Amino acid sequence: MALKVYIAGPEVFFPNGKEIIARKGELARRYGFEANTFGGGDYPSEKFAFGVAISKANEQTMRASDFILANMTPFRGLSTDVGTAYEIGFMCALGKAAFAYTNDPRAYDVRLSTDYYAGAVARGEDGMVRGPDGWMVEDHAMADNLMLDGAIVERGGTIARPPDGPVLPWDDLSVYESVLKTARAYFG
Amino acid sequence: MALKVYIAGPEVFFPNGKEIIARKGELARRYGFEANTFGGGDYPSEKFAFGVAISKANEQTMRASDFILANMTPFRGLSTDVGTAYEIGFMCALGKAAFAYTNDPRAYDVRLSTDYYAGAVARGEDGMVRGPDGWMVEDHAMADNLMLDGAIVERGGTIARPPDGPVLPWDDLSVYESVLKTARAYFG
Repeated sequence: MALKVYIAGPEVFFPNGKEIIARKGELARRYGFEANTFGGGDYPSEKFAFGVAISKANEQTMRASDFILANMTPFRGLSTDVGTAYEIGFMCALGKAAFAYTNDPRAYDVRLSTDYYAGAVARGEDGMVRGPDGWMVEDHAMADNLMLDGAIVERGGTIARPPDGPVLPWDDLSVYESVLKTARAYFG
Repeated sequence: MALKVYIAGPEVFFPNGKEIIARKGELARRYGFEANTFGGGDYPSEKFAFGVAISKANEQTMRASDFILANMTPFRGLSTDVGTAYEIGFMCALGKAAFAYTNDPRAYDVRLSTDYYAGAVARGEDGMVRGPDGWMVEDHAMADNLMLDGAIVERGGTIARPPDGPVLPWDDLSVYESVLKTARAYFG
């Protein structure tokens, strides 16, 4: 029976999200995995209750999955979509394997220093690099916050990035596919 | 024996973070909780290995805690710090109780429509409100992504917000303290 992968990421919010998600599922099948999703159901129409119901359905789907493959490409800002970050934490706590990728080749500290602080960072007397607001520029040579990268690495997974160069568009699935290869080799 | 609370949030990155974290621990004790933190240890000096080691230490501390109290105040952008989001997911998957607060009174869709899209949002023919980039403006009357709010609510926790008005500064712990009261009532 094929291992079930929980494909996490913010694509659901994009106008072409359905198409990208379908392509991701098709690619997963090509590597022998089943893309796990929740089926339709009766969801409440009131917006808050609807949100809670979708959260619950996603959690049930995660519990029924063997591993997570998360899209950590920065979403509406510097970092991973927080729903995806929640899901990585959830799967790691359940002891499931975790893999991730980002279409942004840069480490977190580079994005933070350039995109967010526009270069206005400096090393203080305490040895810490900080922005003009005094906030620390975390540099662990990681794609994002150490809780995300650290957890995945600690569990034998990888956070794949594209080669140096521009951020790849959301519908470029080359890095995503490279992780499917890695996961296939991991599970044998 | 006092219940142990894992106090999650991005304060560690602030110049006055140590002071805020100390005050949070003191307030937690006032409500009968023990603020759980990891002790000093031998951590590797190389930055990547250091990041992985801190991730592992935080996970051990979470496993040894009874509940999480997370600061979901938007951090360097629209949403919760992704390390904190990871930790909420981790604790929820372990079956621990979860509570959160934010010093921003606004719902996610309000921040997204005003701060991020500067009002340039419109309802499309499919009934969805979208930004000029075509991305959906999620509106579940929640403080952040439905995975965060949904999980906490589903487990009987709350996401406290200040009254309508300005975003409170990071060192204003009034909303944080209100959650300690809620947690105290929850645990009895």
